[in-house]
Amino acid sequence: MTIAFPTYETIAAALADCSPLPMAVADAGERHVIDAACAARSAGFIEPIFVGERASIESLLRERGEHPATIVAASNEGEAAERSVNEVLSGRARALMKGHLHTDTFLHPILAALRSPQRLSHVFVIEMERYGKPLLLTDGAINVAPDLTMKAAILKNAVAFAVTMGLSVPKVALLSAVEIVKATIPSTIDAAELTKMAASGAFAPALVAGPLAFDCVLSREASAIKGLSGPVPGDADIVLVPEIVAGNAVAKALEYGAGATLAGVVLGARVPVVLTSRADSLQTRLHSVALAAYQHHRSGAPTRPADGTP
Amino acid sequence: MTIAFPTYETIAAALADCSPLPMAVADAGERHVIDAACAARSAGFIEPIFVGERASIESLLRERGEHPATIVAASNEGEAAERSVNEVLSGRARALMKGHLHTDTFLHPILAALRSPQRLSHVFVIEMERYGKPLLLTDGAINVAPDLTMKAAILKNAVAFAVTMGLSVPKVALLSAVEIVKATIPSTIDAAELTKMAASGAFAPALVAGPLAFDCVLSREASAIKGLSGPVPGDADIVLVPEIVAGNAVAKALEYGAGATLAGVVLGARVPVVLTSRADSLQTRLHSVALAAYQHHRSGAPTRPADGTP
Repeated sequence: MTIAFPTYETIAAALADCSPLPMAVADAGERHVIDAACAARSAGFIEPIFVGERASIESLLRERGEHPATIVAASNEGEAAERSVNEVLSGRARALMKGHLHTDTFLHPILAALRSPQRLSHVFVIEMERYGKPLLLTDGAINVAPDLTMKAAILKNAVAFAVTMGLSVPKVALLSAVEIVKATIPSTIDAAELTKMAASGAFAPALVAGPLAFDCVLSREASAIKGLSGPVPGDADIVLVPEIVAGNAVAKALEYGAGATLAGVVLGARVPVVLTSRADSLQTRLHSVALAAYQHHRSGAPTRPADGTP
Repeated sequence: MTIAFPTYETIAAALADCSPLPMAVADAGERHVIDAACAARSAGFIEPIFVGERASIESLLRERGEHPATIVAASNEGEAAERSVNEVLSGRARALMKGHLHTDTFLHPILAALRSPQRLSHVFVIEMERYGKPLLLTDGAINVAPDLTMKAAILKNAVAFAVTMGLSVPKVALLSAVEIVKATIPSTIDAAELTKMAASGAFAPALVAGPLAFDCVLSREASAIKGLSGPVPGDADIVLVPEIVAGNAVAKALEYGAGATLAGVVLGARVPVVLTSRADSLQTRLHSVALAAYQHHRSGAPTRPADGTP
């Protein structure tokens, strides 16, 4: 049997044996954010550190009848982002979650202070009934129009993430609209280059194939009709999209059209980072937090700092 | 109640009252092509004119136990495309279907001889359980990376098609990854321009909104959370994609991920043109043929030439 990326169910079960991860929630004074963070606390995934307008946070927690939580006051979006990052730098938090603020404002101090040597990128983990395993899609949220070098960095992040999560040989599909290299479609040329780089071991231990249209990402049958064999076509673990609109639209088409469950995290920062969107459901937010918490525990980092600060 | 684009069921029922449309099938000597054309003949949608290698076509028809059909011999892909177009030019065929040949080879003589003053473009008609009506997606198959002028032409084609098919006020969503204009995402700038053009009546009678991410194409709820109102967000009839990979991937994500039914036709030619893909199911091929036949009848063109040739 192929080892696949763990499902939410598997992750939630594994987290039951871990201590809750201290996670700073940037700009937390909004109902959907508080609801998600509290649900993740109830599930035992995290111990939230709420960063934002103290009065709003306290009032929302009271409404829910929640027991007291750590609150770090911040009076605007930028301050909330900065202070959340400070919670990580001080060792009090081990992960970050985007609350009600804008993505750019949230990412700015992360890029400045928490960036690892890797590029910052985003991955959606998509679970849908018609596909036998979770599908990772990158990058549908941060990198707008990556060139070949950036695509290679985005792909490396996703492969490393999949391996951290327990997948020994991730299968990667490089998305385009066709399966042949066409001079008029630049993403086919990049896909051919990335496939060459893969052959030289650039993305080890992943298996990489492309260019592939999306039917050859999900369907063995469609791949066979098109004469494609090999382990990747129709059985991908990761799909690398050429630019943000294609990635974002495919993820949302599967969410709203297929009833897929999405989770989204940022890769390439020094700690796990949950990146939610305003219209995300409680389920998506909870799945994303679980993913980040599991990523932390799998990476072998200590959950509590050595000096015992909360 | 809103009038929506007709479903396949509605179209098939309406075609029962029409005489079969004579349709040239270019490069027909392949099982999936013959199966689809014969199914469409049995349903009464078309009377196929098979163009291609005579021996293969006859043998496949015999295997199926089909009654004799018109065959126009052609010894290779290019010849099959040319002779199919000739069938239209001579008036013997009133529509075209792509058989087993490459898309470029198929489109070449259409561009040369059958192009109308409009740009050639492609539209997918997508029916899925989780959306209350068919969704038209353009262009996920012909135009690779259209500029603003080309996007306007593609959109005009789709609106005209929707109106021909009976939709009085098509609602158009302009796809991007976000709902605001961002200098780093060119499709948001084009969407804002197209929205301005729409306000000046360029796409009448359509209502146009964008940029919109795909959740705001399909979901009223997601649109409301993002503060979007108006008739289009979450209730689109047509989605204009910025380039081919996004369009192709979304259509295939819905087909393989959501079990959506797809139909695909070419717009901007002098007759309806069915454009199938190698991995298309019999259902997709049949839906596409029905769509093209209905498009013919709705356009008011005569089904048989005045001189009575077959």
